[in-house]
Amino acid sequence: MTSARYDVLGIGNAIVDVIARAEDEFLGRHGMNKGSMALIDEARAQAVYDVMGPAIEASGGSAANTIVGAASLGAKVAFIGKVKDDELGRTFAHDIRAAGVTFDTPPASEGAATARCYILVTPDGERTMNTDLGAAQDLHPNDIDEQAVADASITYLEGYLWDPPHAKAAFLKAAKIAHGAGRKVALTLSDAFCVGRYRGEFLGLIRDKTADIVFANESELLSLYETTDFDAAINKLQADAVLAVVTRSEKGCLVVSQQGNVAVPAAPISRMVDATGAGDLFAAGFLVGHARGFGHADAGKLGALAAAEVIQHIGARPEVSLKTLAQQAGLKI
Amino acid sequence: MTSARYDVLGIGNAIVDVIARAEDEFLGRHGMNKGSMALIDEARAQAVYDVMGPAIEASGGSAANTIVGAASLGAKVAFIGKVKDDELGRTFAHDIRAAGVTFDTPPASEGAATARCYILVTPDGERTMNTDLGAAQDLHPNDIDEQAVADASITYLEGYLWDPPHAKAAFLKAAKIAHGAGRKVALTLSDAFCVGRYRGEFLGLIRDKTADIVFANESELLSLYETTDFDAAINKLQADAVLAVVTRSEKGCLVVSQQGNVAVPAAPISRMVDATGAGDLFAAGFLVGHARGFGHADAGKLGALAAAEVIQHIGARPEVSLKTLAQQAGLKI
Repeated sequence: MTSARYDVLGIGNAIVDVIARAEDEFLGRHGMNKGSMALIDEARAQAVYDVMGPAIEASGGSAANTIVGAASLGAKVAFIGKVKDDELGRTFAHDIRAAGVTFDTPPASEGAATARCYILVTPDGERTMNTDLGAAQDLHPNDIDEQAVADASITYLEGYLWDPPHAKAAFLKAAKIAHGAGRKVALTLSDAFCVGRYRGEFLGLIRDKTADIVFANESELLSLYETTDFDAAINKLQADAVLAVVTRSEKGCLVVSQQGNVAVPAAPISRMVDATGAGDLFAAGFLVGHARGFGHADAGKLGALAAAEVIQHIGARPEVSLKTLAQQAGLKI
Repeated sequence: MTSARYDVLGIGNAIVDVIARAEDEFLGRHGMNKGSMALIDEARAQAVYDVMGPAIEASGGSAANTIVGAASLGAKVAFIGKVKDDELGRTFAHDIRAAGVTFDTPPASEGAATARCYILVTPDGERTMNTDLGAAQDLHPNDIDEQAVADASITYLEGYLWDPPHAKAAFLKAAKIAHGAGRKVALTLSDAFCVGRYRGEFLGLIRDKTADIVFANESELLSLYETTDFDAAINKLQADAVLAVVTRSEKGCLVVSQQGNVAVPAAPISRMVDATGAGDLFAAGFLVGHARGFGHADAGKLGALAAAEVIQHIGARPEVSLKTLAQQAGLKI
């Protein structure tokens, strides 16, 4: 195994977020499930946009947000994801490259437009997502840059990749390359409904050690093991996973491993403005800490710090240098 | 004169903002004049975007921001401006309509793309703008909805309209219709460099009473009268204008009229995050107050309150209901 060119390489759906504020009753009126991600088609996307309030556009995508967060922590990172060669595709590419991320996936020249996610942020700061996958549907195993994956300490994959038709094959190809090069593979379960769609396969990825590190929030974890008993789910996770991190919003996180579990508190915030990206940025901090040889507690602390930054403003990517924040918090990054 | 269908109708360049943070040295390195608006062509726009950091996109445009601010204060409002029938044009149209503004100007089906303004926000919160006028170049006198103008208490025009080739004719046509219907015309001088380009014509608009109400900030006022003496400029303005409002950032504003001048303090803020839209939103508050029969001091107070909201977050349009803020401040709107 040679030294790594990248600390983390992410593979995920390349998405531009369209973010507006909404009252809770808006979600009910338009059949949205608060806090979750729903896949929508182009017609539904138009209907959702028509009823949404004034919005701002900002590059997003779960694994992409994580990779940008890792870049902000000073890590060497790359991203693989599919946009179209259109206005929003150029926006996505600009933003991720401007954040210091290597992004070389060729854009699609035909087919659906660049993916967008219509996000409604309610007054409590919770986000409800409606994703039109568009060009992200076209991520294909051929898009996996084999050398880049082999050169990354950790390849990070989002569970959402199970939704597009060929991305799952791309995912498995990347995991195989990573392990062949002696690298690690990390997986986020993405969303409780996503777990519901692919529970058996996700459990398989964990149990056959395709995933060395697993990220989940409480509802994803409970969905995975089809239980309402958190402690029972944690016990099953400990038996199944090499290393897992369960995020619990304001309760912090639990790092679960064969060596025992470590609870890490959430970082203090002034006000939760927009929860979008909280899990993504937590993963960024933990992965960078882990890649740098931090213990579980410090890696969790770095994750909590990154998540705290992103939920205090609109949009799912950091507005300030996370490396500076981490250094101010006494973490030697 | 019949009762008004609109409190304020705005005419201006329809623009989507592309906003990124930058250090002061970035501005110098790329030949940007801090705090001002520079017109750029498509090639320069691409070059600017290539060197900018990660950005967010949000609908903007000076008069458009003012009209959205007026809508947020509960006023009945309309906007006239030119976008192209492209992605950003649909974004602009969505955002302004979702804010409660009547916007019926037909988009251009060919020619340049929807206008965008590349905005760099420095750590002090100041904004530096680079505008590629694109489709806004195509605003034409035929785009003026004569009945809408005749039905608006105040028609609000931005000095930036002097830049596109036919917009000046549209501007003058609208002013004539407004006055023919017994309505008022308001003008913002927009930018000190814009005043430099069209000083003689702007003075003409004021002196021949095309503009009943004039908005300027300090640097625009000094540029208009080619002086560095603020008091001398105010004296000239008082002699020239029916009613003028001079905004002075943290020093508040001075309402200048034949009946004497009234100073209004700035509204308190926690932190200036992004000055973009400060003047636009000040104008929104003042115009709505004026249309509702407020005295100069209270109209200025409403302007100060609207400006204070918009400079405390990224983007040039209000994030919360200005009407609610005004009511909380004891202004009966």
